[in-house]
Amino acid sequence: MSVSTVTYTFLGPEGTFTEAALLQVPGAADAKRVPCSNVNTALDKVRNGEADAAMVPIENSVEGGVTATLDSIANGPELRIIREALVPITFVLVARPGVEISDIRRISTHGHAWAQCRIWIDANIPDVEYVPGSSTAAAAMGLLEDDAPYDAAICAPLIASEQPGLNILAENIGDNAEAVTRFILVSRPGALPERTGADKTTVVVPLPEDHPGALMEILDQFATRGVNLSRIESRPTGLYLGHYFFSIDADGHASDARVADALAGLHRISPATRFLGSYARADKQSAVVAPHTSDAAFKSAHAWVDSILNSQP
Amino acid sequence: MSVSTVTYTFLGPEGTFTEAALLQVPGAADAKRVPCSNVNTALDKVRNGEADAAMVPIENSVEGGVTATLDSIANGPELRIIREALVPITFVLVARPGVEISDIRRISTHGHAWAQCRIWIDANIPDVEYVPGSSTAAAAMGLLEDDAPYDAAICAPLIASEQPGLNILAENIGDNAEAVTRFILVSRPGALPERTGADKTTVVVPLPEDHPGALMEILDQFATRGVNLSRIESRPTGLYLGHYFFSIDADGHASDARVADALAGLHRISPATRFLGSYARADKQSAVVAPHTSDAAFKSAHAWVDSILNSQP
Amino acid sequence: MSVSTVTYTFLGPEGTFTEAALLQVPGAADAKRVPCSNVNTALDKVRNGEADAAMVPIENSVEGGVTATLDSIANGPELRIIREALVPITFVLVARPGVEISDIRRISTHGHAWAQCRIWIDANIPDVEYVPGSSTAAAAMGLLEDDAPYDAAICAPLIASEQPGLNILAENIGDNAEAVTRFILVSRPGALPERTGADKTTVVVPLPEDHPGALMEILDQFATRGVNLSRIESRPTGLYLGHYFFSIDADGHASDARVADALAGLHRISPATRFLGSYARADKQSAVVAPHTSDAAFKSAHAWVDSILNSQP
Amino acid sequence: MSVSTVTYTFLGPEGTFTEAALLQVPGAADAKRVPCSNVNTALDKVRNGEADAAMVPIENSVEGGVTATLDSIANGPELRIIREALVPITFVLVARPGVEISDIRRISTHGHAWAQCRIWIDANIPDVEYVPGSSTAAAAMGLLEDDAPYDAAICAPLIASEQPGLNILAENIGDNAEAVTRFILVSRPGALPERTGADKTTVVVPLPEDHPGALMEILDQFATRGVNLSRIESRPTGLYLGHYFFSIDADGHASDARVADALAGLHRISPATRFLGSYARADKQSAVVAPHTSDAAFKSAHAWVDSILNSQP
Repeated sequence: MSVSTVTYTFLGPEGTFTEAALLQVPGAADAKRVPCSNVNTALDKVRNGEADAAMVPIENSVEGGVTATLDSIANGPELRIIREALVPITFVLVARPGVEISDIRRISTHGHAWAQCRIWIDANIPDVEYVPGSSTAAAAMGLLEDDAPYDAAICAPLIASEQPGLNILAENIGDNAEAVTRFILVSRPGALPERTGADKTTVVVPLPEDHPGALMEILDQFATRGVNLSRIESRPTGLYLGHYFFSIDADGHASDARVADALAGLHRISPATRFLGSYARADKQSAVVAPHTSDAAFKSAHAWVDSILNSQP
Repeated sequence: MSVSTVTYTFLGPEGTFTEAALLQVPGAADAKRVPCSNVNTALDKVRNGEADAAMVPIENSVEGGVTATLDSIANGPELRIIREALVPITFVLVARPGVEISDIRRISTHGHAWAQCRIWIDANIPDVEYVPGSSTAAAAMGLLEDDAPYDAAICAPLIASEQPGLNILAENIGDNAEAVTRFILVSRPGALPERTGADKTTVVVPLPEDHPGALMEILDQFATRGVNLSRIESRPTGLYLGHYFFSIDADGHASDARVADALAGLHRISPATRFLGSYARADKQSAVVAPHTSDAAFKSAHAWVDSILNSQP
Repeated sequence: MSVSTVTYTFLGPEGTFTEAALLQVPGAADAKRVPCSNVNTALDKVRNGEADAAMVPIENSVEGGVTATLDSIANGPELRIIREALVPITFVLVARPGVEISDIRRISTHGHAWAQCRIWIDANIPDVEYVPGSSTAAAAMGLLEDDAPYDAAICAPLIASEQPGLNILAENIGDNAEAVTRFILVSRPGALPERTGADKTTVVVPLPEDHPGALMEILDQFATRGVNLSRIESRPTGLYLGHYFFSIDADGHASDARVADALAGLHRISPATRFLGSYARADKQSAVVAPHTSDAAFKSAHAWVDSILNSQP
Repeated sequence: MSVSTVTYTFLGPEGTFTEAALLQVPGAADAKRVPCSNVNTALDKVRNGEADAAMVPIENSVEGGVTATLDSIANGPELRIIREALVPITFVLVARPGVEISDIRRISTHGHAWAQCRIWIDANIPDVEYVPGSSTAAAAMGLLEDDAPYDAAICAPLIASEQPGLNILAENIGDNAEAVTRFILVSRPGALPERTGADKTTVVVPLPEDHPGALMEILDQFATRGVNLSRIESRPTGLYLGHYFFSIDADGHASDARVADALAGLHRISPATRFLGSYARADKQSAVVAPHTSDAAFKSAHAWVDSILNSQP
């Protein structure tokens, strides 16, 4: 059996930032990589066994949470995040050979990319019309067709450099030079990745009730155990206005006693809480743990309570 | 001077749910209504004085916060929300006369609308291809052009009924019969709308620091004063991953003592907190106020403290 | 072996409210009852095996916590509270036969009793001088000696009715008709009393540090688990001003999951926390338990976390 | 008019630690000093105008709060603490000339003093009998009478050195060499002492209700404004078991914005909250103030809220 028997899906098409993220996974370059037209499809192929794991975007430093991913992993058969990847986001403006910037009347790209290049666009091609695209790569590839209803596309450097028919007119046209997107590798539930000491745990917590303190009670489960949160996103459940779930990334691994204890607290308050995985942080930044929330403190506390409950005359 | 001198912008084109929301405003039917191609443009025309107010969507019970609106009102010159409107969201499937459901190969609509009709689509036209549209109305109007690259569109009943060239193939195809979108009417800063007793206050609060309790401290400003939150959205500031601001709707009016006191607390913790307005709730639901957070309790408390500070021998 | 082999100490002398409390214990009337001159002695005889249990006062509705008891059980070899008793406190004024109220110049009694009869005294014998006594019974018995340096005593009805040489001049002279003292029966550590559903748990928690939130963190261990507190007393550790421990009674039994979890939290925050027992409430008032803090909720939460930690491919 | 027209009462008799505390007050050495037999009397003479101020003990590092003082200032006509004083507590053993330690059978002193010398007594005169005294000075002076029912007394060095008829048998016999008692100088309500930057504020807060979070809500008024607490004492109101008030010392002056704001919060939650004064700390230790709780932060926050409430078109 060879490495090539592993199958990955990813949010396609080929040449987007998502494939760049997937290629960071050891062995992925030699594995079978299946581009999917949307996040749901990529994840469903994992759910039904057609693929072993899926790479999808979850968070963008400029545009925020990727709602399709947040909603898809929060519902349906359970999945587990087993890895994260960070990819710097830089954009290029491409057109067919012979087209100059001054010729451009219509530009296509994905809505998120469009939003992230507004400053450059407003300064350089202020009157251009925007044509929505289903992805940056699709917009770029569309230029190669004869009847393309636009003159230029904004896309990732990867695809621009691979397609001989595309000419790069401008590089680094994103508003924010520090822009980065976080991607997650998602598999079916299985053994947790090893604890590394620099881990992250992701959960989905439906807000139990609409009262002044409900969200605070949830956050308190982390705070009272010294667990820092690196991401918190509210998402509507779709039932009615004001009914939310929260997608939360917490520092630490489920096998850290303080995280396990916080998970138990969440489950009590909101029994439909969903565990989405513990996995190594891409930035390898270790959590700071106060003495009273260390594994040793929890072990000592539970031993003490056990000794009380098992007291004999 | 007549009512018609009032100018409203709105997220266009004409015939979308946003215009339906605007038409709920007294006098709007006779006012000048300017459709804009995006939220930013609609708001900027208010900022620069071309329009008096803008109607834009802020929250959808299925798709969540409208990020373009959340981000646009949180930045740039200050604006104020002076009114909210709720519009039930129902979708119809339209095509040119003669086209049957079984003929449809490609459907266009706005991404949010597409996401909200997946169940009906999967059950009735499972293999159809999706073509992104910039709005539901644009997708519908596009069908009237000769070279439309799709056969059908999903749009609001309003536009379907007004365009003789469109045939309604199916009604109420949304997944959620209770779907509703909340819109806000935004003006330049001015006198606050009168307190009605059933009000809402909207603020934008940048998270001051990345530490375990920062968000809790912010929420605590509301909770300790018995102020309920009806919406909380996290949004990236765009600076770096994990740097957020929160967009929050709280029950009550800035001239309610408990709300004013909470605002002062927010400003202390996060001095860049932005006040976006106090306005009547569309559902006219009055806030429940505990005795110790009533205006009388605050007035009595401050009188007491003043008597202490001004004690004389 | 007969019941009489059981030995109880109590805060003497005989005839005080403490003996009345002890007589509420089944079998105590036939057991050996040893009066002790102070709380420390009564408890030390339990610690060294001379007695099986000690009855001592812990809390008075008028005078507050009995500091000798609070401090004694918080230090030295560990003890356990196994029962509580409530005794209504009523006072009588006694003197030798022939003495009238108008003859009284000096009254002796225990300081607490004196404090609780001030209203009656001020109204009826305003100029009387107070002579401190080591107990109410000692003050009363002292009247029977020839050289008693006082004319009257305030004591419990029990001793007054048993001593033929004492004449009751006035009854129910206490300021507060509802006055009650709570007593505790203390033994060496052993098996916990059975959970009855209407239980109380007593702990001693040293304040870990002098910072704004230390006490709140301790209280939060109870509050976040819905555990009500029926008593909280601050006591100095004796080390320096501002260094405290807290003596706390919480509703519930250590074998209630929410209480056990709170105990573990206390131990983590303040590792020198001392468990002083779980025992049936004298008033048989059951605790109100929210669904998310029930034993079932804790069991379900821990099972869920275990299933996560033990996930297999 | 001379300084001698000022009249101070103090918890007598002369020669106790309380008079030593009073003598720390500038001018007190030349003022009229009236010893009182109990705290209530000393305070009542201030209330009715017979005296200008009273010096009474409030807290002892070994024995804890002085309940007579805590209760007396919490009830009746309002009083104000205007100064505090710290006095190191050291004890001496005295007897009439000719009496040796080995001759001692009975010792008298105040109960608190007795409690603080137990180690020395147990080690040196283990079988001695204790005779309660109304004060350390009264016990010492009693030795000078012919029929003293005890052989020795424990008292403050001050009185021992002033009375020729008393012989010091042992010095520094207290258990804790660091023992200190805190005294307060109490006057009728008047102008607050000037803010010094190292101040303390004392309040009495009745617990509004018996529910899990009542005390936390009170403490939260301080914690959320970064106000540290240096003392917290629970005291029964005397109404029924479990009904408390809390006597609290907080860092800062009522004219500090964060303290004033906390006071207003307390008053809202517990309208019967009593303000007992703001005064300079004896240890001159300045409070640490976080930027978001500084006077400037409060001023800026209120100006911001005012600008919102007074917005004009």
